[in-house]
Amino acid sequence: MDGQPARDTPAAVDAMAVAVRAKVSSCPAPFLPRVAGRRKRALGDLFGLRNFGVNLTRLGPGDASSLHHRHSRQDEFVYVVEGEPTLVTDAGETPLRPGMCAGFPAGGTAHHLENRTARDVLYLEVGDRGAGDEVEYPRDDLALVPDPATGRRRYARKDGSLW
Amino acid sequence: MDGQPARDTPAAVDAMAVAVRAKVSSCPAPFLPRVAGRRKRALGDLFGLRNFGVNLTRLGPGDASSLHHRHSRQDEFVYVVEGEPTLVTDAGETPLRPGMCAGFPAGGTAHHLENRTARDVLYLEVGDRGAGDEVEYPRDDLALVPDPATGRRRYARKDGSLW
Repeated sequence: MDGQPARDTPAAVDAMAVAVRAKVSSCPAPFLPRVAGRRKRALGDLFGLRNFGVNLTRLGPGDASSLHHRHSRQDEFVYVVEGEPTLVTDAGETPLRPGMCAGFPAGGTAHHLENRTARDVLYLEVGDRGAGDEVEYPRDDLALVPDPATGRRRYARKDGSLW
Repeated sequence: MDGQPARDTPAAVDAMAVAVRAKVSSCPAPFLPRVAGRRKRALGDLFGLRNFGVNLTRLGPGDASSLHHRHSRQDEFVYVVEGEPTLVTDAGETPLRPGMCAGFPAGGTAHHLENRTARDVLYLEVGDRGAGDEVEYPRDDLALVPDPATGRRRYARKDGSLW
């Protein structure tokens, strides 16, 4: 669907009325439980955007946004709409409230969000889709690296063996 | 500042506490009054993001987000935080409410927002910074096109003469 709005997409939508994406993550099965709770509404894809993605993501109590990670070439940004997630970076932890935002330039600190409260968290996340990106997971035996033959990214262990 | 977070930037900020950008627009003087009211907080730049910009933009009563325009290569996205702007596209007008969003893929419909209400409007806008972009303004004698010598974009009239 990239580059083409879904047929019959209206000019604008209520973000919460967009269907939750069926696939939770493409990460290897051992890591899946840690991100299984998150629910993403792919707002950018809905309108046919190709250069960046925008998701409205919900974290229930105990859920995490992602594994602790850092992109090599892609930037990321989050804006909290509801609830009080904890931002975890290599510099420490920061409690967030609605209306707060954080940006993660390529190659900067690794990061993720955790919902340690009893209420849902809702946030907007933006990430570009620039070519040649790799993902480092400093706390896990995991990396997302391009296949030299195809350029498609694959999950590998830190010794280079594929998951 | 691109690519480098401002010195002493915290891990996260209250978006409304970010200073409003001093420069309202770089467009030619005759068009400036139509966008002079908008107020942009450059959230992405604050954190050193380079691949896309994220602004929290406020429109007072009567203000417009921009001239009616379309990008040739860059995508755009808006999410309404407060107030009820009117989205104007080539397909017509759509009233927006908080929590609504719209995306504008490169080469798609021209668009802008207007605040026709008596209350402020606050919205997040995202746009990527991919190379080679041109901007078309179908309702104005204006275009933003790259200088063949330098690649820097300049404002021109539709006959190609520079503003």
